[in-house]
Amino acid sequence: MNAKGNFITFEGGEGSGKTTIISRLSTYFDDHSIPYMLTREPGGITIAEKIREVILDTRHTEMDARTEALLYAAARRQHLVEKVRPALDAGTLVLCDRFVDSSLAYQGYARGLGMDEVWSINQFAIDSLMPDVTFYLDIKPEVGLSRIAASQEREVNRLDMENIEFHHKVREGYHIIAAEYPERVIMINADQSPSQVMNDIVCELEKGILKDFGASLSNKSK
Amino acid sequence: MNAKGNFITFEGGEGSGKTTIISRLSTYFDDHSIPYMLTREPGGITIAEKIREVILDTRHTEMDARTEALLYAAARRQHLVEKVRPALDAGTLVLCDRFVDSSLAYQGYARGLGMDEVWSINQFAIDSLMPDVTFYLDIKPEVGLSRIAASQEREVNRLDMENIEFHHKVREGYHIIAAEYPERVIMINADQSPSQVMNDIVCELEKGILKDFGASLSNKSK
Repeated sequence: MNAKGNFITFEGGEGSGKTTIISRLSTYFDDHSIPYMLTREPGGITIAEKIREVILDTRHTEMDARTEALLYAAARRQHLVEKVRPALDAGTLVLCDRFVDSSLAYQGYARGLGMDEVWSINQFAIDSLMPDVTFYLDIKPEVGLSRIAASQEREVNRLDMENIEFHHKVREGYHIIAAEYPERVIMINADQSPSQVMNDIVCELEKGILKDFGASLSNKSK
Repeated sequence: MNAKGNFITFEGGEGSGKTTIISRLSTYFDDHSIPYMLTREPGGITIAEKIREVILDTRHTEMDARTEALLYAAARRQHLVEKVRPALDAGTLVLCDRFVDSSLAYQGYARGLGMDEVWSINQFAIDSLMPDVTFYLDIKPEVGLSRIAASQEREVNRLDMENIEFHHKVREGYHIIAAEYPERVIMINADQSPSQVMNDIVCELEKGILKDFGASLSNKSK
């Protein structure tokens, strides 16, 4: 095993079930005594939280889309430096809810800033620290949004419903990314039960990143 | 004359006399009834000011250099969109104290982040809106810093004196930029009296940007 930990990110549109799956994966890692760190930007990092406050301040209605993209990249950088990289350096498996691909799909593609342009500022932010594996939970926007509508957990917001076209663009963006980085991005059919989605992800992990844990996994399941 | 205004930026190391020269140029433009706008980032733009507050917050001692560069680029973007571009679109001559080249010289070169890398995030920020002319006030760091030390106007701060090597790097960075963009960057010998520096700059303006104002200038001087 490498001393350096593995870096797994999770991506997907609204209602793709990321939260549920990440929670179940945490349980899986707990059950198998695999140490991990679960995070998402800004992740409690003071500077990153301050930057997000600037982005989310509702008085800033006139914020330019490129300003916003640069601020997201800045918050990403600081979260990476203070939280993700130290954990990876310590050999910890890091699970991150959304990362670079979200910026590419949402801002670069769906908002029309350009994927190459958004990629360039994110390259600067991450300084070549890319995920080892990215699970992209693929689902039709209509199905994802109807899940949210049916759920008691959170209300459907304006962004969710107003512009189905936007969510289709986000999905198209993710499909472009998955085609471009086949060795990193694993597309998972998220229009299945959570157990089936979990099964697909665990299969991929066990033949990939978790191969090293294979012996202990086999021992435990005996 | 173009409907679009001209964009002039001023660059230089510590003690190069930018403030004095910009103030004298303002008087020159006033005297010749040439409308202009004088600005510097964050320039009173709420979002840009908020971003600068994050950068300058002294509790943020652990801010990563790349995070900082992204935040400067974000503040630059918003200042450009809200203040510089509207003025240029209205045909106003814009004078800006420091712009992209400061990031390239200070962060890209002197701090060692890489000029190409810092250029890439700034390209994203400015979206090809580059200055028509940049006056770089060139001076040896020793001379510039001794000017500050002799001046009653402001105290020499830690950054000024601690690391003369850093200021030499900044100057090297500016020289690289001037060599790379000879059609845009005009290097002015700042180790002269303010009147001589002003004379050099006005000469350049009158054979360049202010050619269009030639007739009115001649009329006024008659």
